[in-house]
Amino acid sequence: MKKIMTFGEILMRISPLGNKKLVQSNQLEYYFGGTEVNVAISLAQLGNDVKHVAAVPEDFVGEAAKSFLNQYGVDTSMLMTSTYPLGLYFLEVGAIMRSSTISYNRSHSAFAMMNSEIIDWDLAFDDCDWFHWTGITPALSKGASQGLKKALQIAKDKNISISADPAYRANLWQYGGNSKEILGELVGLSDTFIGGPNEINELLNTNFENDVNGFVVSCKHLISAFPSINRVFDKTRVSVNANWHKIKSRMWDGKELYETEELEMTHIVDRIGTGDAFAAGLIHGLLHYKDQKALQFANAACALKHTIEGDANLVTENEIELVVNGGLTGRIKR
Amino acid sequence: MKKIMTFGEILMRISPLGNKKLVQSNQLEYYFGGTEVNVAISLAQLGNDVKHVAAVPEDFVGEAAKSFLNQYGVDTSMLMTSTYPLGLYFLEVGAIMRSSTISYNRSHSAFAMMNSEIIDWDLAFDDCDWFHWTGITPALSKGASQGLKKALQIAKDKNISISADPAYRANLWQYGGNSKEILGELVGLSDTFIGGPNEINELLNTNFENDVNGFVVSCKHLISAFPSINRVFDKTRVSVNANWHKIKSRMWDGKELYETEELEMTHIVDRIGTGDAFAAGLIHGLLHYKDQKALQFANAACALKHTIEGDANLVTENEIELVVNGGLTGRIKR
Amino acid sequence: MKKIMTFGEILMRISPLGNKKLVQSNQLEYYFGGTEVNVAISLAQLGNDVKHVAAVPEDFVGEAAKSFLNQYGVDTSMLMTSTYPLGLYFLEVGAIMRSSTISYNRSHSAFAMMNSEIIDWDLAFDDCDWFHWTGITPALSKGASQGLKKALQIAKDKNISISADPAYRANLWQYGGNSKEILGELVGLSDTFIGGPNEINELLNTNFENDVNGFVVSCKHLISAFPSINRVFDKTRVSVNANWHKIKSRMWDGKELYETEELEMTHIVDRIGTGDAFAAGLIHGLLHYKDQKALQFANAACALKHTIEGDANLVTENEIELVVNGGLTGRIKR
Amino acid sequence: MKKIMTFGEILMRISPLGNKKLVQSNQLEYYFGGTEVNVAISLAQLGNDVKHVAAVPEDFVGEAAKSFLNQYGVDTSMLMTSTYPLGLYFLEVGAIMRSSTISYNRSHSAFAMMNSEIIDWDLAFDDCDWFHWTGITPALSKGASQGLKKALQIAKDKNISISADPAYRANLWQYGGNSKEILGELVGLSDTFIGGPNEINELLNTNFENDVNGFVVSCKHLISAFPSINRVFDKTRVSVNANWHKIKSRMWDGKELYETEELEMTHIVDRIGTGDAFAAGLIHGLLHYKDQKALQFANAACALKHTIEGDANLVTENEIELVVNGGLTGRIKR
Amino acid sequence: MKKIMTFGEILMRISPLGNKKLVQSNQLEYYFGGTEVNVAISLAQLGNDVKHVAAVPEDFVGEAAKSFLNQYGVDTSMLMTSTYPLGLYFLEVGAIMRSSTISYNRSHSAFAMMNSEIIDWDLAFDDCDWFHWTGITPALSKGASQGLKKALQIAKDKNISISADPAYRANLWQYGGNSKEILGELVGLSDTFIGGPNEINELLNTNFENDVNGFVVSCKHLISAFPSINRVFDKTRVSVNANWHKIKSRMWDGKELYETEELEMTHIVDRIGTGDAFAAGLIHGLLHYKDQKALQFANAACALKHTIEGDANLVTENEIELVVNGGLTGRIKR
Amino acid sequence: MKKIMTFGEILMRISPLGNKKLVQSNQLEYYFGGTEVNVAISLAQLGNDVKHVAAVPEDFVGEAAKSFLNQYGVDTSMLMTSTYPLGLYFLEVGAIMRSSTISYNRSHSAFAMMNSEIIDWDLAFDDCDWFHWTGITPALSKGASQGLKKALQIAKDKNISISADPAYRANLWQYGGNSKEILGELVGLSDTFIGGPNEINELLNTNFENDVNGFVVSCKHLISAFPSINRVFDKTRVSVNANWHKIKSRMWDGKELYETEELEMTHIVDRIGTGDAFAAGLIHGLLHYKDQKALQFANAACALKHTIEGDANLVTENEIELVVNGGLTGRIKR
Repeated sequence: MKKIMTFGEILMRISPLGNKKLVQSNQLEYYFGGTEVNVAISLAQLGNDVKHVAAVPEDFVGEAAKSFLNQYGVDTSMLMTSTYPLGLYFLEVGAIMRSSTISYNRSHSAFAMMNSEIIDWDLAFDDCDWFHWTGITPALSKGASQGLKKALQIAKDKNISISADPAYRANLWQYGGNSKEILGELVGLSDTFIGGPNEINELLNTNFENDVNGFVVSCKHLISAFPSINRVFDKTRVSVNANWHKIKSRMWDGKELYETEELEMTHIVDRIGTGDAFAAGLIHGLLHYKDQKALQFANAACALKHTIEGDANLVTENEIELVVNGGLTGRIKR
Repeated sequence: MKKIMTFGEILMRISPLGNKKLVQSNQLEYYFGGTEVNVAISLAQLGNDVKHVAAVPEDFVGEAAKSFLNQYGVDTSMLMTSTYPLGLYFLEVGAIMRSSTISYNRSHSAFAMMNSEIIDWDLAFDDCDWFHWTGITPALSKGASQGLKKALQIAKDKNISISADPAYRANLWQYGGNSKEILGELVGLSDTFIGGPNEINELLNTNFENDVNGFVVSCKHLISAFPSINRVFDKTRVSVNANWHKIKSRMWDGKELYETEELEMTHIVDRIGTGDAFAAGLIHGLLHYKDQKALQFANAACALKHTIEGDANLVTENEIELVVNGGLTGRIKR
Repeated sequence: MKKIMTFGEILMRISPLGNKKLVQSNQLEYYFGGTEVNVAISLAQLGNDVKHVAAVPEDFVGEAAKSFLNQYGVDTSMLMTSTYPLGLYFLEVGAIMRSSTISYNRSHSAFAMMNSEIIDWDLAFDDCDWFHWTGITPALSKGASQGLKKALQIAKDKNISISADPAYRANLWQYGGNSKEILGELVGLSDTFIGGPNEINELLNTNFENDVNGFVVSCKHLISAFPSINRVFDKTRVSVNANWHKIKSRMWDGKELYETEELEMTHIVDRIGTGDAFAAGLIHGLLHYKDQKALQFANAACALKHTIEGDANLVTENEIELVVNGGLTGRIKR
Repeated sequence: MKKIMTFGEILMRISPLGNKKLVQSNQLEYYFGGTEVNVAISLAQLGNDVKHVAAVPEDFVGEAAKSFLNQYGVDTSMLMTSTYPLGLYFLEVGAIMRSSTISYNRSHSAFAMMNSEIIDWDLAFDDCDWFHWTGITPALSKGASQGLKKALQIAKDKNISISADPAYRANLWQYGGNSKEILGELVGLSDTFIGGPNEINELLNTNFENDVNGFVVSCKHLISAFPSINRVFDKTRVSVNANWHKIKSRMWDGKELYETEELEMTHIVDRIGTGDAFAAGLIHGLLHYKDQKALQFANAACALKHTIEGDANLVTENEIELVVNGGLTGRIKR
Repeated sequence: MKKIMTFGEILMRISPLGNKKLVQSNQLEYYFGGTEVNVAISLAQLGNDVKHVAAVPEDFVGEAAKSFLNQYGVDTSMLMTSTYPLGLYFLEVGAIMRSSTISYNRSHSAFAMMNSEIIDWDLAFDDCDWFHWTGITPALSKGASQGLKKALQIAKDKNISISADPAYRANLWQYGGNSKEILGELVGLSDTFIGGPNEINELLNTNFENDVNGFVVSCKHLISAFPSINRVFDKTRVSVNANWHKIKSRMWDGKELYETEELEMTHIVDRIGTGDAFAAGLIHGLLHYKDQKALQFANAACALKHTIEGDANLVTENEIELVVNGGLTGRIKR
Repeated sequence: MKKIMTFGEILMRISPLGNKKLVQSNQLEYYFGGTEVNVAISLAQLGNDVKHVAAVPEDFVGEAAKSFLNQYGVDTSMLMTSTYPLGLYFLEVGAIMRSSTISYNRSHSAFAMMNSEIIDWDLAFDDCDWFHWTGITPALSKGASQGLKKALQIAKDKNISISADPAYRANLWQYGGNSKEILGELVGLSDTFIGGPNEINELLNTNFENDVNGFVVSCKHLISAFPSINRVFDKTRVSVNANWHKIKSRMWDGKELYETEELEMTHIVDRIGTGDAFAAGLIHGLLHYKDQKALQFANAACALKHTIEGDANLVTENEIELVVNGGLTGRIKR
C-alpha cells in the first residue's frame, strides 16, 4: 500500500435538495469535502494509505468532520483542533443553463486561522510516498501558505513525489499574499503538474491557447521555468450545459503528447470535486501504473465522479478500470 | 421601481416526490402558484413592486398562501378572506413519454366563489404601471369573470398598460360563460397580446397555421379585430419528450417580425409555470428595455424557469441577462 | 369471518411533518381516512370481511384512495366514481397546550355531491352481519343523508345489526338539514348506540351530567325515546394536554352498568381517529365476544390507536388482547 | 376480465435515495417486487384479475408485502406464510457509465425454503386463462423448481395459456439444479416464449447472433426443439449509458417476422423491472388484441416502465395506447 | 397597529433531524432566528408593524434570510448587505438528561462586522412606538455595541418605549468590551427591564437569591441604580429535564409584586427562543393590555413557544389568549 | 489508551420513520449495530482503542458496515469477508403500551455462517486489556459458538480481563446447541459478570427473586458455581410504558452490595442498545475508575443511551460524568 499525505481545508458543503433554491425549503443535506480532502478520500477508497493534515473545531462539528474522513478510510490522527469554526459553503445546484452558485463562509475558519508552525511535518511525512497540494491552500491565509511551503520543502528533502494542482481562484487570496509569486515558489518545489494552458498562463503571465498545440508549447515553457516539473497532466472539459459535459485528458511527459478518448457525461449527478477526482485518479495511476494508463485512469475517475453525490469520488478501482476498458453502458451488476 | 398589479387565483400545488405516483408514497411537497401569481412572483423577484389581488380562506392554509407571496416580495395587502377553501391541484410528474397529470380541486374555491364587487379597484390600481391578466380567471366563475372585466375597464381608464394571456382551457369554463365572447371583450381592452395562431384561432374562429407565416397573418387579423392590441408576443415550444424541450419566441409589433434564437432545455427540472415565466419576463422587459430585447429577455426567462422547482420563476435579472448574452453552459459561480 | 358494511366519506388528510405549521415547510405527508373508513380499515385489520361504500374522483387521486383501502384489506368493489374532487383536510399537529387545527375542503366533494340513489343497497348488504354509521354522513349533504336513511331502512329490514355513532359536529350541517330530526330518525333505526350524555343531550335536548350517574340516567332516557336501542357504549377522555390523555369506557345494557379500567396515554403519537378505533374495537368485540369483554376490547383498541400514525387503527387483535390483559409496559417483541 | 396466475418470489428492494451509495446516508426507500410479482401487478393495473402464489414470513414484513400486492389489486389469498425471512436486495442506483449494483439476500428466503408440495394448484388455477413463469423461480431452490414444474403440468392439463420468460441468471442456481435440463423441461410445457437468441442459445447450446436474422433462425430452432412453443417475442435494448436506452421488439409467429418502432428513453427514472413490464404488456396484449398489436403494446409498456419508480409497471392501458399511437411528447394532462 | 423596531443579528440555525447527532445523518433542517429577530417575528405574527435592522450577505443566503423575515411579516427595508457571511449555529437537540449543544459560527459575521455608523436611525425609528434590545448585540463586536448605544440614545430622545433583555453570555464578548459597563450604560437608557436576580446580580455585582424575595429586593436595587427603569418582568423556569419544563413569571412595577400561574410543558417540541417569545408577548401585552394581563400574556406566549419548531414563536393572539384563560388541554380545533 | 476487543455479529437495523408501521410508508432509515458492536462503538467514543472481529459480505453492504465502524473509531482491520449476506432486522417502533416489534433476518448471515477457525486470535488479542462477549454469539451458530470459546480460552491464557453478558434469547439457539451448557462453559472463563437473578437463574436452574436480596444471594451462588467470576453488575429497569423507563444498577463484588440512584427517562428516544451502553460504560468505568464509580458511570451511560438514535451509545465521557454528578436537567450547552 502506498502512503500519501494531503494538507488542506476540510469544508462542509450544505445544500438544499435537488435543484431547489435555499429559500424554497428548510431541508438541507451536507457533505464534508474540500479539494485536498476529496483527493485524500478518493485515494483511500482506491486502497491507498492516506493521511490528511488540517484543523477542525473542538466541538461536534469538528468531530463529525473527523468521523467523515475516518468513515472513508482517511487517517485523521494529525488533525488539529481549533476554537475557530469549520469552513463551509452553501451550494444551490443549477441545471441546464442555470449555474450552480456557491456562498462561502471560510475566511475565518479553523484552517485559515490555524498556526501551521506547530505541525510536526516529520511525523506527517513518515514513510510517505506522495504529497499533493493545490492552489487553494496558499490562497486562504498567510499561515496556510507558509505551512504549505514548509511542507513542500520537507517533502522535497525527503524525496517524496509531489503533485501540484495550482488552480488560481481570484475570489480567494484576500489576505494580501502575492499569488503569482507564491504559487511559483510552490510549483518550483513540485514534480508533477496538474493543469494546462490556463494555469500556466496564470503562473507565467503568458497567453497560450487552450488547445493541443497550446498545451504542448505551454508545457515546454512551464518546464523551462520550473525544471523540477517533469510531467504535466491536463483535463479539458466541454460543457453543453450544467447537466451535460464531455472530458478528455492529455499529458506531456517532456517528450511526447498523449491524449485520452473523450468521455461524455449526459446526465451529471454532481459536478463538484470532479477535478479532485482527476487528481486522485492520476496520483493512484502514477503510483501503480505507467504514465499513459495513469492518464486514462485519471480521465475515467473524473468522468465517474460526475455520477457520485457529494464532493469526493467514492468509486472503486474496478469501476474505473471498467470505464478505462470501454465499459460505458452502465449495465446493472447483480 | 415599476408597479404592477395582478389578479387571479392562488392555487396550491401538491405532488409526490420525484416521479412517484401518488399511490406510491405518503410523502408530498407543495408550492403555491397559479398563473397570475407566478407572474407576480417572478416580477417581484426581478425587482418590481407587485401587488396581487385574490381571495384566500381565513385559516392557516390562507395564511400560508399569503406568507408565501410575502416571502417572494409580493404585496398581499389586498388579499380578501373567504370561508371557501383554497383552490388546489395534485400533480404527478411524468417523464420521457409519460405525461404529467393534474387533478384539480378548484371549482368551489375561495377565488372562484369570491364576491369581486367588494374589491376596491381604485386602491388596487393606485400608481400602477401595468396590469396583467390571463384566460384562466374568466374561466373560473361568473364572479371572477365580471371582476376581471371591471378591473380591465378601470385600468383602461387609468391608461395602465395591459397585457393579455388569453389561453383557453376547455376543461375550465364550467359555470356557463361564453368563452369566445368573454375573452374577446377582455382582449378588446388590452394592448399587449401574449399568444399566437392557436390562441388567435380560438378567439377569431380562424384556422391559421402555427408557423411563422401563420403567426404574422394571424397577428394582422387579431389587430384588425381588436385595434387596441399593438404588439403580439408568442413563445413556441418543441417537445422531444417530457424532459427535453426547445423554445423560441417571436413578436409582431404591427410592422415587423422579430424572432429569438432557440433555447434547448435538455434536462427539465419543472415544466409548470414556464408560460408564466415568459409573460413575467416580457412585462419586465417591456417596462425596462426595448421590445426586441424584451422578447429575448422573455424567451430566456422562460427557458430558465425549466430549471426551477415550483410554479414561479425565481431567477434574477442577472441570470436572465447572462442567457440573453449567450451564456448557456451553466458554469458554477463561486 | 364476519361481514361488515360501512358508508361514508373517504377523506385525505394532509399535514406538515411533526409539529410544524404549514407555513414552515413545503414537505407534507398524507393518509386517507374519514370516520367510517377508519372503522372499516380497523375491522379489516382485525380479520373481518369489510366492504366500504363511497364515491371517489375518477382520476389518480381517487385511484390512490381506493388502493389505500385495498392495501388494508377493505373491499372497494362498490366505490362509485365522480367528477367532483376527493374531500380533504389539512392538519397542523399541536402539542401540550397548543391545539391541533384542521382546515376542511369537503363541502363539494365526490361524496357530498354523490347521487346516492344509484347505490345498489341489496348488493352492498349481501350476507352482511353489521352496519355502522356516524353523524358525519348525514351532516354532509342532503344526498348523503338520504342515502344513509335508505341504507338503514334496508339494513333494518334485513335484520342486520346496526351501530350508531351519532356525533354532532356543528360546523358541518351546512346544507340546511335539521340535525336533531335527522339524527333522531337514524338512531331510531339502530340498535347499538355509541355515545354518552353529550350525544344524548344533543339528541333529546336534555342536560345530563357527563358522569357515571348522568350516563346511566341518560341511557335510560335514550332507550325510552328510541326503543330499538338496546345497548349504549361510551368512552370518556381526560386530557392533561394535547400529548397526554386518559380514557375509560362504560356500557349500559339496559340493566347494568359496566366500566373499564382507565388507560393512560402519556406520549400520544396521533390523536385522530381514536373514537373510530373505539367503534371498530367495539363492533369486533360485539361480533366475537361477550358485551363486557367487547367494552374492554374497545377501550384498549382506542388506547392503542393513540400510538399509530394516520387516521385508522392498524393494530392486531393480539396487540389489543395484550392490553386487555394488562400488558401496558410496551416491552420489545423480538 | 381475464384471469391470470403467477408464481414466484416476492422480493423487497431497499435502496438509498437518488444516486447515493449506501454508505452516504442512513435514509432508504423500499418497494416490493420480484420478476413474477412485477408481471402480476402490471397485469392487475391493466384491469386483469391476477392471483399470485408465493410464501412470505408470518410477521409485519410479510404482512407489508401482502398489503403491497393488495394495494395494486393482486389477489393474495393463496400466499403461504413461513418462518423464513422475506428475500430482499439492496440496490445502489448508478448513472451514466456507473452501473447500478445489487446485493442479494435471498438464498434462505421464505420462497426459496418453501414446501411447494402443499400448494393447492387446482385452487390456484381455478378458472385461469394464463400462467406466466420465469427462469428465476427454478433457479432458487429445488422446492421452487419442483413446484413450478408441477404447476406447469397442471396448467398444461387445463389448457391454460403458458408464457415462459426463461432468463438464465448464472449467479442464482446455487442449489445444484441442472439449469439447461430444467429450463428445457419447463419450456417444453409452454406455448409463448419470451426471449431471443441469447436465451435460445443458452437453452440449445447454440450460437446464434443477436440480430434479426439470428432471431428468426434461432426461433425456428427453438420451435423445432420445443414444438409446444408457437410464438416468440423478444425485446432488444441499446444502452447509450445507464440513463439513456432505446428498445425495439420483434416477434416470430412460426411464419412471419414483425418488428416495432424503436422507442428512446432519454432520461430513465428506473430501469428495474422493464423486462417484466414487457412480459405483462405482452400477456395483456395477447389476451385482448391481435399478436402484432400485442407486440407493440408490450414494447410501449416496457418503454413506459422506464419512467416509473419501483419494480412494477404502474401505467394504465390508456397511457400505453397513447405511446402505441405515437404520442411520445409527454405533454401535461390537465 | 403599533410600530416596533428591533436591531440584532439574523442567525441561521442548522440542525440534524430529531435527536440525531450531526455525525449520524447528512440530512439537516434550518430556520432563521436570532434573539431580536425572534422577538420581531413574534410581534409581527401578533399583528404589529415590525421593522428589523441588521446586515446580511449580498448573496442567496442573505436573500433567503430576508425572505424569511418577509414571510413572517417583518419589514426588511432597512437590512444592509455585507461581504461577510451570515452568522449561524449548528444545534444538536438533546433529550431527557442529555443537553442540546450549540456550535456557533458568528464571530466574523455580516452583523458582527457591520459598520453601524451608516444606519439611518431616524428612518429606522420613524413613527416607532417601541424599541427592544438584548444583551447579545453589545456582546458581538464594538460596531454592534456602538450601533446599539446610538440607537438607544435616539430612541430615548424620541420618547420611544425601550425594553431591555440584558442577558449576559460569557462565551460571547470576545472583542474586548467591558460587559458590565456597557450593559449598564444601555440599561440606563431603557424603561422596561426583562430579567431577574440573575441578570441584576450580573449588572450590579450583587448576590440576590433567585426567589420571590430576592426578586423584589433586586428589583428595588436595580431601579435605584437605573432610575429610568420603571418595570421589571421575569420568567422563572423549573427544568425536570430537557423535555419537561415549568414556567412562571413575576413582575415588579415599583410598588407591587404580581405572579402568574405556573404552566407545565410536559412534551417540549423546541426549547430555543422561549425567552424571546416571553419578551415578544410582554411587549405586545404592554402595548395592548394592562401590565398584569401583559405578564400573563407573556407567560402564556413563552409556554406556547415550547410547542413550535424553529426559533420564533408563530402562535396567534387567540392561541395565547386561550391559554391565559386556562385552556390547557390542547383540544383539536376543527 | 486501553485496548479492548469485541467479537460478534454486525447487524443492520432497518426501520420506518417515527412510529410508523412498515406498511405505512416506503421510507426507511438504517443503522448498523449488534450487541457487541454497540459495546465496541461506545467504548471507542469514550476514547478507548477498540478492535471488532466479525464477518461481512464482500459487497457494498459489507463495505458500508465496515465504514460505519470506522466512522465511530472502531478498528476493522480484522473483519473477514463472506459470500453470505449481512444479518439484519426490521424494527417497528412502538409507543406507550404498543410494543416495538422486530423481524430478524440473520439465520444464514455472514457472521452465523463464518468459519471462525481462520481467525488469528493472537493477532486479535495483541496488547489487549479487555475482552467482552455476550450470550448472542454462541446462540447464532456452532461456528460462532466455537469461535467464541476459542477466543475466551486464549484471552484467559493471556490474562486479559473478560466481561460476560450471557443474556439468553430463546428465539435464537436454532442450530441445536445446548444453551445452558455452552453459556456455563463460557461464563466459567470470565471474570466480570453482567446480569442478575434472571440471567443467573437461567444458568443455574435456580429461582431467585429479582430483587436486592435475590441479587445478593444469586451472586453468591453464581460465584460459587463459577469461581472465576469476581464481580457481578446488574441493571434493573422499571417500565412505565414504552416511552418511560427508570433504571437503577447494583453490584456485588463478592463482599459488598452497592446500588446507584434511580434515573428516570421520561421521553425515551431509542430503547435499543441500552443494555449494551451499560456494558460499555461499565467496561470503561472498570478500566479507568474504581468499581463503585464504574457502576454509577455504567448506570448513567445506560440512561443517556435512551436519548440517542440508533443502536450504539454516542455520548461522551463528559456527558456521562455530568449525569453521574447529578446533572439531570439537560440544560442547553452553548
